[in-house]
Amino acid sequence: MALVVQKYGGTSVGTVERIKAVAQRIARVHAAGDRVVAVVSAMGHTTDELLKLASAVSGRPSLREIDQLLATGEEQSMALVAMALHDLDVPAISLSGPQAGIRTTGPYGKSRISGIHPSRALRALEDGKVVIVAGFQGLNRLDDVTTLGRGGSDTTAVALAAALKADRCEIYTDVDGVYTADPRLVPEARQLERISYAEMAELAWRGAKVMHPRAIELGKLYGVDILVASSFNDNPGTLITEVAPVENVNTISGIAYDLDVAKVTVARAPAGTETLAGLFGPLGEAEISVDVIVVESAGNGGGRTDVSFTVAEKELHSVEPIVRRAAERLGAGGVTLAGGFAKVSIVGTGMLNRPGYAARMFKALAAAGIEVQMVTTSEIQVTCVIPRENVDEAVRRLHRAFGLEQGGV
Amino acid sequence: MALVVQKYGGTSVGTVERIKAVAQRIARVHAAGDRVVAVVSAMGHTTDELLKLASAVSGRPSLREIDQLLATGEEQSMALVAMALHDLDVPAISLSGPQAGIRTTGPYGKSRISGIHPSRALRALEDGKVVIVAGFQGLNRLDDVTTLGRGGSDTTAVALAAALKADRCEIYTDVDGVYTADPRLVPEARQLERISYAEMAELAWRGAKVMHPRAIELGKLYGVDILVASSFNDNPGTLITEVAPVENVNTISGIAYDLDVAKVTVARAPAGTETLAGLFGPLGEAEISVDVIVVESAGNGGGRTDVSFTVAEKELHSVEPIVRRAAERLGAGGVTLAGGFAKVSIVGTGMLNRPGYAARMFKALAAAGIEVQMVTTSEIQVTCVIPRENVDEAVRRLHRAFGLEQGGV
Repeated sequence: MALVVQKYGGTSVGTVERIKAVAQRIARVHAAGDRVVAVVSAMGHTTDELLKLASAVSGRPSLREIDQLLATGEEQSMALVAMALHDLDVPAISLSGPQAGIRTTGPYGKSRISGIHPSRALRALEDGKVVIVAGFQGLNRLDDVTTLGRGGSDTTAVALAAALKADRCEIYTDVDGVYTADPRLVPEARQLERISYAEMAELAWRGAKVMHPRAIELGKLYGVDILVASSFNDNPGTLITEVAPVENVNTISGIAYDLDVAKVTVARAPAGTETLAGLFGPLGEAEISVDVIVVESAGNGGGRTDVSFTVAEKELHSVEPIVRRAAERLGAGGVTLAGGFAKVSIVGTGMLNRPGYAARMFKALAAAGIEVQMVTTSEIQVTCVIPRENVDEAVRRLHRAFGLEQGGV
Repeated sequence: MALVVQKYGGTSVGTVERIKAVAQRIARVHAAGDRVVAVVSAMGHTTDELLKLASAVSGRPSLREIDQLLATGEEQSMALVAMALHDLDVPAISLSGPQAGIRTTGPYGKSRISGIHPSRALRALEDGKVVIVAGFQGLNRLDDVTTLGRGGSDTTAVALAAALKADRCEIYTDVDGVYTADPRLVPEARQLERISYAEMAELAWRGAKVMHPRAIELGKLYGVDILVASSFNDNPGTLITEVAPVENVNTISGIAYDLDVAKVTVARAPAGTETLAGLFGPLGEAEISVDVIVVESAGNGGGRTDVSFTVAEKELHSVEPIVRRAAERLGAGGVTLAGGFAKVSIVGTGMLNRPGYAARMFKALAAAGIEVQMVTTSEIQVTCVIPRENVDEAVRRLHRAFGLEQGGV
């Protein structure tokens, strides 16, 4: 009798029919004798509609009230899924984040799970009930509901699986699993049977939408095996787990891309640590994520450097005044900001300690006449910033260059 | 600096524009230096839409899950009203029933408020904040959200006013106040400036939709003055309070009617208390409200009586098998059930100890050729069961007969 934590995303519970299908899926696992905790997201576009209401009512809605509002979306789903299970004669109980003992910390809208007191869920499981939990939410120490920010329901599921010592955690979504590249761009992309936490987290950070990297890192931390699969069919999905290194010495696992990239350059700034602190400090305080950072000596003497980095293009309007102010304070020569870029990444533990992957990547892009503007590498990934219009071509070329359709070369 | 508890019903917060209008109304009171706690219902048809979703998902949705689902409607309103207040630079905080310390007891879907622990609301008031509370809900001892059933938000407001020792309780709705009769039926109906708890409760029990009788009785119990007024204009409304008897010795206050009436007769049942217990016991267990009860000796000897009573016609399908079973057990002669009736009532403390009101009522109805099927009286009301198609005519005739357009004769 295994204990399974499942998570169903917004599309999976998007309509009455989908909710009934989810209930049937849960009922099958329950009938097989396993205990089930199912974490659910808000139905389809509920969250977007609530946000629209909020901005219609207020020009600058408070984050606390946004959280009070948004939490209702998941609470509606959980009750409806529990009702659908009752209709199949499966005993079930819905629990909101607070009822499920999920405690949070940090700011409204992007709080983190600080702990789980699962006694009520455990009691319900002992009573033979399926437990449906509202994802994306918990209770902070002020007794306020807070939401967990993007990927929140995935995180709820993995954290619950850890707290309940579940045998497995299954993330149901609208795709069949994790692919070597986006199948919409690369028809021959191959679904992976398994992938390591580290690779999956990199793919997710680098743009793969399947699952949120926070949830993957939590899974790694607590050793929770995570199955990503479709709620629309019975395909086997992809298992995210610790993969024995021997299995993947020769290959990369996949290719990710991110279309929302702008490039910022601060030219002829004074060399030295003050420049980086003076530039990235204010951006960090404004909670703006900065990615690929390139610092190059300007070669024009006088201890000057050019600093380039990428930000999400949609944040460019907040970035610009901060960077201009910082550049002025530092006495830098000038600031340029440009949108229209993308990042394309190859990810794989196979490249650990094996040089040559980056070179192969550059060669494949060069052969297609794609200009690489910036590069960043880590132990298990190489990321190139390229013009956005070249992304489709780049992903296809790289997929072929690394032989991913055949399991990697 | 007064403390005011206000309540805004579903129509009053039915759209984004209405929510903004409610926020402006609250802001005016706040600007005048008073402290405000506002209880809000779910927006317009939200509750109906959630119930529709529930019945689409399940043929017999569990009451606990219905409550988990419905509670989200008021929680959405409260957050939106708080946001709209922020937009007017009024500090405000929304509190769900559980957060406001509203504790409940009794069954899901129709629980009662067992107590209020208002410390969090009081703290927010001390901080200068307007407090927006989700009506219609509270937390039971299992830590489950339960709803209060019909009129729940009115009850939340009056109970909060009592717990917070508020200076007044204002119920905002889509009518201007309490009228001597339904103004849609009687154009010359007059709005009452004030009415006693007892009369208002009778009018409400007898069909007036303005406010729920439970809330009025709670107001009487705790001596909370209740103002019923429109959220759509600034008319003065009607004050429900203890009225000095001298003010209304000569008149009745108003006329109410209820269109959902069916008549049930159990003929030739054995005379004696067993018959009434055997009949009304099972109906009570099924939570069916029975109103006008007439027991008449059948006049055919052998200690037999006919028992007639009214129920809501929409409950007739549940009533029929219970009554037939009971009648069979009692050895009664037969059961007849018939819909198509209505109740029309005159209500007023003016009739206390003054005979003749019932007679005047019968005379007015007789003059219009309206057949009275059953009658029930108490100290402050007389109710007649009449054919449903005669209701409009009956209300108009009675309004005139008692001179209500001129303040009563």
